Amino acid sequence: MDPNASGLAQRLAEAGQSHLLQFWSKLSPEEQVELTSDLQQMDFQEINSFFEKAMEMSSSSKQEKMDARMEPVPREVLGSVTRDRESLKDWELEGLKCISQSKVAVLLLAGGQGTRLGVSYPKGMYDVGLPSHKTLFQIQAERILKLQQLAEQKHKVKCCIAWYIMTSGRTMDSTREYFSRHNYFGLDKNNIIFFQQGMLPAMDYNGKIIMENKAKLSMAPDGNGGLYRALGNQGILDDMERRGIGFIHVYCVDNILVKVADPSFIGFCVKKGADCGAKVVEKTNPTEAVGVVCKVDGLYQVVEYSEITLATAEKRSADGRLMFNAGNVANHFFSFSFLRDVVQKYEPKLQHHVAQKKIPYVNAEGQLIKPDKPNGIKMEKFVFDIFQFAKTFVVYEVLREDEFSPLKNADSQDAKDTPTTARHALMSLHHRWVLNAGGHFIDENGRHVPAIPSLKDGTDLPIKCEISPLVSYGGEGLEELVKGREFHPNLMIDENRVQELVKNGV
Amino acid sequence: MDPNASGLAQRLAEAGQSHLLQFWSKLSPEEQVELTSDLQQMDFQEINSFFEKAMEMSSSSKQEKMDARMEPVPREVLGSVTRDRESLKDWELEGLKCISQSKVAVLLLAGGQGTRLGVSYPKGMYDVGLPSHKTLFQIQAERILKLQQLAEQKHKVKCCIAWYIMTSGRTMDSTREYFSRHNYFGLDKNNIIFFQQGMLPAMDYNGKIIMENKAKLSMAPDGNGGLYRALGNQGILDDMERRGIGFIHVYCVDNILVKVADPSFIGFCVKKGADCGAKVVEKTNPTEAVGVVCKVDGLYQVVEYSEITLATAEKRSADGRLMFNAGNVANHFFSFSFLRDVVQKYEPKLQHHVAQKKIPYVNAEGQLIKPDKPNGIKMEKFVFDIFQFAKTFVVYEVLREDEFSPLKNADSQDAKDTPTTARHALMSLHHRWVLNAGGHFIDENGRHVPAIPSLKDGTDLPIKCEISPLVSYGGEGLEELVKGREFHPNLMIDENRVQELVKNGV
Repeated sequence: MDPNASGLAQRLAEAGQSHLLQFWSKLSPEEQVELTSDLQQMDFQEINSFFEKAMEMSSSSKQEKMDARMEPVPREVLGSVTRDRESLKDWELEGLKCISQSKVAVLLLAGGQGTRLGVSYPKGMYDVGLPSHKTLFQIQAERILKLQQLAEQKHKVKCCIAWYIMTSGRTMDSTREYFSRHNYFGLDKNNIIFFQQGMLPAMDYNGKIIMENKAKLSMAPDGNGGLYRALGNQGILDDMERRGIGFIHVYCVDNILVKVADPSFIGFCVKKGADCGAKVVEKTNPTEAVGVVCKVDGLYQVVEYSEITLATAEKRSADGRLMFNAGNVANHFFSFSFLRDVVQKYEPKLQHHVAQKKIPYVNAEGQLIKPDKPNGIKMEKFVFDIFQFAKTFVVYEVLREDEFSPLKNADSQDAKDTPTTARHALMSLHHRWVLNAGGHFIDENGRHVPAIPSLKDGTDLPIKCEISPLVSYGGEGLEELVKGREFHPNLMIDENRVQELVKNGV
Repeated sequence: MDPNASGLAQRLAEAGQSHLLQFWSKLSPEEQVELTSDLQQMDFQEINSFFEKAMEMSSSSKQEKMDARMEPVPREVLGSVTRDRESLKDWELEGLKCISQSKVAVLLLAGGQGTRLGVSYPKGMYDVGLPSHKTLFQIQAERILKLQQLAEQKHKVKCCIAWYIMTSGRTMDSTREYFSRHNYFGLDKNNIIFFQQGMLPAMDYNGKIIMENKAKLSMAPDGNGGLYRALGNQGILDDMERRGIGFIHVYCVDNILVKVADPSFIGFCVKKGADCGAKVVEKTNPTEAVGVVCKVDGLYQVVEYSEITLATAEKRSADGRLMFNAGNVANHFFSFSFLRDVVQKYEPKLQHHVAQKKIPYVNAEGQLIKPDKPNGIKMEKFVFDIFQFAKTFVVYEVLREDEFSPLKNADSQDAKDTPTTARHALMSLHHRWVLNAGGHFIDENGRHVPAIPSLKDGTDLPIKCEISPLVSYGGEGLEELVKGREFHPNLMIDENRVQELVKNGV
């Protein structure tokens, strides 16, 4: 196990990373084994080249120049649920057809822990406090199950939506275990495929790998764009091919409203012959912290909010809307053949982005230091970095209030995107579903509650109303349950309709 | 003082309000004097007729029928800061001309106490926690002062913007005293005219006036539409005529971003020959709690969010925008002649609206009861009730992030429109002013801070930046102070430019 004898010390020296062994003689035998194992798996030359390219890209200050190179999404590649209403039904039917043929897979980016939420388990296991106490994973699983049923009913064939779940080293075991414990929420476990994204070490500004303690490197997931490398080296692409997957919907775990495998989105992309597509919501405030889908030098990409100048963010079209208003919600469509090309040909060409971070480290004396300024970088690729390689790229605009409410931060006064905002967004949507299906809510005096709740005092929070995805995927099929009926909040509609339909009496 | 001898008992009996004297024999002589004085001022027959008409109007369930009668604001009466950019300069010049001729007055609706904010003093005296600790009143006063200066500089004449401030019985003394103590924030006190809106008693559902204790009626201001009656019976209309006021900008105290006497808005209305106009912001979410300006049966009005059905709130135009998207922000324009007609002819015809409330009351045993359900009504008129009488009504659409952030609730996790949201809205606007004038913000490492702050952690709240209204009314005149310069937050620019320009070093 001697690093000199094994050649490890030599490899490290050649890569300029010899400091990783600086505490070797002070480590226990177990620590020595573990560190050796960690280091032997790593390709330091590759890591060094990632670092050099990433730093080079990051230092070429592009921001000022970016403005002149940006163009908005042209109308002809845009589908919109508000502006193309006459086509919506066709798109949905096309999507359902693809689903019924088992050609559609969903791919969930779930590598993140709930750190900012204040929990150490995977974000998908978070309970935002709905009446049902369902977690994000459960909500998404039930939407997939329901959508399979809808496609089967429509086309009278059995079908399945394969669900690929990308975890990270930190979340793999707990995610797997959670799904198993809950019996895969009624889905066939053979159609849920877990895989793991890669990790990269954090580096200081001189390209030295940072150690988080004397025996351990500081490692972090390689960004959600790590997806592509993982798809290749973990056999996922092959699995998709075996299953005959034609279309893949990629999304992030944190959006409580996500329409998993959204048939309208998929149908739109398929009908347009797209190899890649992005779902967006309209950005209406210039300084909203959301990336925008646009063209740069004629190629599609997401310009992140931190990269855009105010002048460009404030630009408006003749109709008064923001010119760059295609807000990225991390919901993407890929054809299988494009995804394969990305994995095999395009992604390896891409450099990592640099995220400057405050990274705790051990100093030469072996003390753990928590810096109060950024002291190094994490290297990440982003899932949307490959938009530029699409031959036919399309954009699909949906309503924020119907489809996007991410869970990012713990509840606190100044925070956005919290368990409370996610819970309210879901209940508000379900409240609207009930009203649009002809139901009414009444207050304690039997009067109809206004459709738009007043915000005047604490008692006027959104009406508590939750509808199980097993009952309705997107608001459909509720008429028979609610039309012409009056409900007191809280209303909970689940698959055991009769018992559970109404709480607190009718 | 015997109510029988004075005829008071008789008057009350005729009006069915004899219960107001039920505790007479138990009152102290002082209480008897006060109650007698309160009752003698009141016209019970009129109050009873208000009650009957209001209840009649409220019980005729109009909501369902309203939908078919609503039409959106037609494009030809709409001016928009985003869609009519080529006209903005002309409108602003026209407005400044009117201001320079001292033809423009502002009228502030400031009758409300900060009850929902958790304070007992007038809302205008609230300090939202800006670096300067200026109150809403001070901010508005300084905007008026600056605008006078801008008009004077442009037209080389002295001018003044008369400021009419409507308080209520509860806020009059403290408001006057506050302005006096602060020396009217540099304005000429002769051009600040305080007046008081009326009060009406709260009634139970049978039309009996509610007593808040044995000697006192439960009184409440008669709504912001009480403005019109007060303008007449307190000589304000005459004062305006004496001063030669031609145009009046009416607004509510609670909007920290309010552009008092906004020259562009006034110029737009004047150029369009309007007798009445409303400033609006685009409503983008169907269930946002904001009233919308629209036509009902061909007449302009504000349909409140509690009156609209979801189906109508969700209706969209071909361009994908909400059909009813002219969100009322309580900023209105009146020509003087129209306002005079309203006061003298139109407003008296209008019924009060009914607001069902939980009103504390003394029961027959003299005990104070705090009901947990609505037990009676307050009667209110709304300032926009008279839109229907305008001959030429126009609508002016502005950007929410530039002009509208009302202060309504105390800070708490679920609350909207709080001191925090108001403070952030102002600092975000001023941050954008600095960037648009060519300034930059840099962080502790000397790097440019992105224009759109990240929300990733608590340290990334909006950049602290406050610019005194005495320096800039609407972002103008900042180039010479900031262009090409780099600032650390917090930045504070006030009229003592040099000393105060930068805090925490450059």
